[in-house]
Amino acid sequence: LATAPIALLTDFGLADPYVAALKGVLATRAPGAPIFDLVHEVAPGDVEGAAFLLAAAASYWPAGTVFVAVVDPGVGSERRILAVRHRDRSYLAPDNGLLEPWLDDGEVRAAQRPDLYLQGPGSTFHGRDRFAPLAAFLATGGGFEELGPPVANPERLPIVRPRRHADGGASGRVAHVDRFGNLITDLPSDWLPAAGFELWIGDHRVRRGATHYAAIPRGEPAVVAGSMGRLEVSLRDQSLARAWGVQRGTPVRLVAL
Amino acid sequence: LATAPIALLTDFGLADPYVAALKGVLATRAPGAPIFDLVHEVAPGDVEGAAFLLAAAASYWPAGTVFVAVVDPGVGSERRILAVRHRDRSYLAPDNGLLEPWLDDGEVRAAQRPDLYLQGPGSTFHGRDRFAPLAAFLATGGGFEELGPPVANPERLPIVRPRRHADGGASGRVAHVDRFGNLITDLPSDWLPAAGFELWIGDHRVRRGATHYAAIPRGEPAVVAGSMGRLEVSLRDQSLARAWGVQRGTPVRLVAL
Amino acid sequence: LATAPIALLTDFGLADPYVAALKGVLATRAPGAPIFDLVHEVAPGDVEGAAFLLAAAASYWPAGTVFVAVVDPGVGSERRILAVRHRDRSYLAPDNGLLEPWLDDGEVRAAQRPDLYLQGPGSTFHGRDRFAPLAAFLATGGGFEELGPPVANPERLPIVRPRRHADGGASGRVAHVDRFGNLITDLPSDWLPAAGFELWIGDHRVRRGATHYAAIPRGEPAVVAGSMGRLEVSLRDQSLARAWGVQRGTPVRLVAL
Repeated sequence: LATAPIALLTDFGLADPYVAALKGVLATRAPGAPIFDLVHEVAPGDVEGAAFLLAAAASYWPAGTVFVAVVDPGVGSERRILAVRHRDRSYLAPDNGLLEPWLDDGEVRAAQRPDLYLQGPGSTFHGRDRFAPLAAFLATGGGFEELGPPVANPERLPIVRPRRHADGGASGRVAHVDRFGNLITDLPSDWLPAAGFELWIGDHRVRRGATHYAAIPRGEPAVVAGSMGRLEVSLRDQSLARAWGVQRGTPVRLVAL
Repeated sequence: LATAPIALLTDFGLADPYVAALKGVLATRAPGAPIFDLVHEVAPGDVEGAAFLLAAAASYWPAGTVFVAVVDPGVGSERRILAVRHRDRSYLAPDNGLLEPWLDDGEVRAAQRPDLYLQGPGSTFHGRDRFAPLAAFLATGGGFEELGPPVANPERLPIVRPRRHADGGASGRVAHVDRFGNLITDLPSDWLPAAGFELWIGDHRVRRGATHYAAIPRGEPAVVAGSMGRLEVSLRDQSLARAWGVQRGTPVRLVAL
Repeated sequence: LATAPIALLTDFGLADPYVAALKGVLATRAPGAPIFDLVHEVAPGDVEGAAFLLAAAASYWPAGTVFVAVVDPGVGSERRILAVRHRDRSYLAPDNGLLEPWLDDGEVRAAQRPDLYLQGPGSTFHGRDRFAPLAAFLATGGGFEELGPPVANPERLPIVRPRRHADGGASGRVAHVDRFGNLITDLPSDWLPAAGFELWIGDHRVRRGATHYAAIPRGEPAVVAGSMGRLEVSLRDQSLARAWGVQRGTPVRLVAL
């Protein structure tokens, strides 16, 4: 009997025993289930960053995949554990906005299965004591509806969605800075005006577009249609984030010419 | 025929080819065995840190798991390779104290199976040439007793165990500093006096307890019963280790009031 | 039906969603295939470093293994995707020299299978959209010859191979600096003169040899026959790279006495 893949995203990092303990519970409760690491280097407590990373990867995973996303500053408090089912995939995370991308279209429940939980020492590691048992339950064929009751008012992320203006321009923000120093905005790539544009990242203006990184003239930033369906700004073979000192959250303004 | 999980803990880091070569030998010798990464970011040569991390995770893994723990400054010398069996799990590591937590209660043998070893270039990478073949042997059903003879005098870690005092106080040390800046002591959580206490971390005094991180008032450190069964000291949403500049090994003193 | 292992080496790092998306495509297209991380911390765009790391690990993997190596500054351009078959293992990488170690002895083809590719957003992520589908095709039994036509002129790395001199000496370079600060040269270990030698790393002279790290006197660097079959220079329990400030590429000169 095949078990579903379990895919993990946390802010636990790779130098502590937390990922190791969580995986041990999964291997015990769901023997044979393929367990995958997505990202564990989410900045401590960065719920918004975790939501972005999970959304960038989740749709590429097979039907049946169980995602476990633990960035959980409220662990041990009364905050709920959410379970969301969306397009044949299941998501488990604290009720803190991490599952924002799937809340509108997914089936949302509050997981309440103390019968499954580990009675581990302390109340500070629900990843190990609660999320892992819940994920193993789903991966081994447990019913999603059996996790707990529907939730009508999950916590939302306080993020402002990008806006398109009547004149063809748009405003948004830098949603992610990647390892290569690419500035990934929240503006959909198809918002780029065909005729001509200026894209402002804070006080920096970009007027050039490019189909891919190697088509960018050296030393000149350009706008690229990125792999997440969003506009990116990049320098060829250099970190633009470092060159400009730009971080996540910087305002982005698109002007149609 | 199912093969047992193999779980890896090393100080090899993630930027060199060492983990990759070790896993290749495992995939070759134990095809189909699930191979898991625990931690590879142990500081180079930090045997004590490795023992702490492995002890914090091992008990959550299923019966049959084979742990391979390689922090091995003495590689290539006459130091032995230890194999320990404890509660249906097996542990392989250099005889340098790394398996300290299981030496008293486990069955301890010196692995001596040159018939299994790879004759790789050099004598500096027993992780690949010896530990991986030994782990594959165990994971594919090889008998623990066939690894080699019992060992009566394994190397021990030069660590001082925490002490409880007659007046209800205790003394110990900071055993680990995690990514979140929590200071994890070696004092068992149930040593915390019910009536009242002061906990000293070096020169820093803590008088407040909390059930979980989110219950800590901002800016004030508090003692929490941690997920490893030990007392931790934490700041809410901040790194206490950075705020105080405290590192592993700092003396800890618990005073009953 | 067993699927072949897929082993990944990239410069994507572990804090972005790129490895997570690539693995999702593999899990979807090759369900049940064991997927392994080799190294993802290759420096951005460091093709030569990636070739070194892959060569250091690949021969330890089982027959049938499919290696996916993506360090791809030219992604989206007309650069080809190479597939190389060598000793029953398959390698996929951009045609930029990454597969240098297998070009002379392997069967080299240009992968051209748009029927398999994902039509992902943008043209900047061939790891997800092209390499992963090609790897899944091979891992699930697809024929290597069906990937595309033979290639006679793959791109080569601009590296100078080490040279042995008539007097028993040799010249080369530091090929890798590992986490422990060992300086791994490109000189084969069996080039070390039996009688006596001086090894120069830039302006630093080493006259001592050692069989393994723990045999090196503290504070004195020594030459060791390393685990990759190359001469290394090391300090005991310290980083020689840090002590000397030596980096990859530093010239190495071996003098026979």
